[in-house]
Amino acid sequence: MTIQLYDLCGADIDLRFSPHCWKTRLSFLHKGLDFETTPVPFTKVATIEGGDSRKVPVIRDGEKIVEDSYEIAKYLDAQYPDAPSLFKGEGGEAITAHIVNWSQTQLHPAVTQLCLMDIYNELAPNDQVFFRTTREKLFGCTLEEFDAKFPKTRENLEKTLFPLELTLKKQKFIGGESPLFADYVVFGALQWLRTTCTHDVLPHDSKVADWFDTLLDMYDGAGRKAKCVSQG
Amino acid sequence: MTIQLYDLCGADIDLRFSPHCWKTRLSFLHKGLDFETTPVPFTKVATIEGGDSRKVPVIRDGEKIVEDSYEIAKYLDAQYPDAPSLFKGEGGEAITAHIVNWSQTQLHPAVTQLCLMDIYNELAPNDQVFFRTTREKLFGCTLEEFDAKFPKTRENLEKTLFPLELTLKKQKFIGGESPLFADYVVFGALQWLRTTCTHDVLPHDSKVADWFDTLLDMYDGAGRKAKCVSQG
Repeated sequence: MTIQLYDLCGADIDLRFSPHCWKTRLSFLHKGLDFETTPVPFTKVATIEGGDSRKVPVIRDGEKIVEDSYEIAKYLDAQYPDAPSLFKGEGGEAITAHIVNWSQTQLHPAVTQLCLMDIYNELAPNDQVFFRTTREKLFGCTLEEFDAKFPKTRENLEKTLFPLELTLKKQKFIGGESPLFADYVVFGALQWLRTTCTHDVLPHDSKVADWFDTLLDMYDGAGRKAKCVSQG
Repeated sequence: MTIQLYDLCGADIDLRFSPHCWKTRLSFLHKGLDFETTPVPFTKVATIEGGDSRKVPVIRDGEKIVEDSYEIAKYLDAQYPDAPSLFKGEGGEAITAHIVNWSQTQLHPAVTQLCLMDIYNELAPNDQVFFRTTREKLFGCTLEEFDAKFPKTRENLEKTLFPLELTLKKQKFIGGESPLFADYVVFGALQWLRTTCTHDVLPHDSKVADWFDTLLDMYDGAGRKAKCVSQG
């Protein structure tokens, strides 16, 4: 049966930029599972599948609804054990939690500093109101004030990615010889940036850049083909 | 056969503070392997076992010599597969590289800022000369100038540990229900601080603090019993 992925979108429903939804999209591709996506704008996320406070990604697999990309990956490995594992063992599944939290608390802020206004500019008017209200409450200042604090250069992002750069000097993927969910976690953050950012700030001339290129081309170029906002 | 661990020491040969050697010590205890330690001061590390540029930890297991705590952990799991695994699977082994690099590049600087002079003060005179020369070259300033830049409070350390704090809100150890080498990597950094620091700066009142306490008490309190420099 085809699994349903509720996937965040912009005013253009083909613009799919959520880092967390990208983690899940690559999880499906990794396991070779059939899935289709339903585009959902910010203001419709909470009520997906009859909920009242949902966050994307949400999947429906038959009667089963699962939320949160890490929980979804664990669900898929348990439910489809014959398809390639997203964790390769109990240790990998547990330790991946640290990658998730590192990415969320270190990498996501570095990305947000580069593309906050670019994301805002791609939303439908009512989603812009939602985005502005929730983010301004979080930051304690206007979107424009937040955005003005940070130069649109790759320096801070590359500094944040330094631990990964060291890892990729010794192994092809975070998962070793082939990617695991841990790789898709970091990929999601960079694809979020790639699909939305109007500045040329992705990592370049580095092991991380090569690794990201490799992942963009995998699964018949699913990442590479994604619709992106034009730069400049 | 008893495995030999060459373990960094201070002027007092019972003061064992190297974060990397603590990772290996807990690896042995985890696997229930017999080992004994040989104390080595900074100026004798390079020439351990006839080397010319060694770094601790170095182990000798029969005729086999292995260096670097992550390499040692991989060696121990391969050589002693019937003892409890330090990685619990291929995924865990690979993903642990990111924990190693995160700890080395994020956590170690935060610890160094708190206990650099305390370490220096515990070394024998010729080791002090070595330590001062190598670290001043690295920092581009005197030890005292470096040390004066950083307040001796736990604030920056706790901020650096935030991803781990989130992980430990949902699981007992980085390794899941029980610790793995990934846990010992972070433990090593905090035990380095605990054994040397004269200021009260260890994490407190947090999941990380509870987790560290648990690890200090494991293996018959091997971590808890370690000789520490007196505070204050």
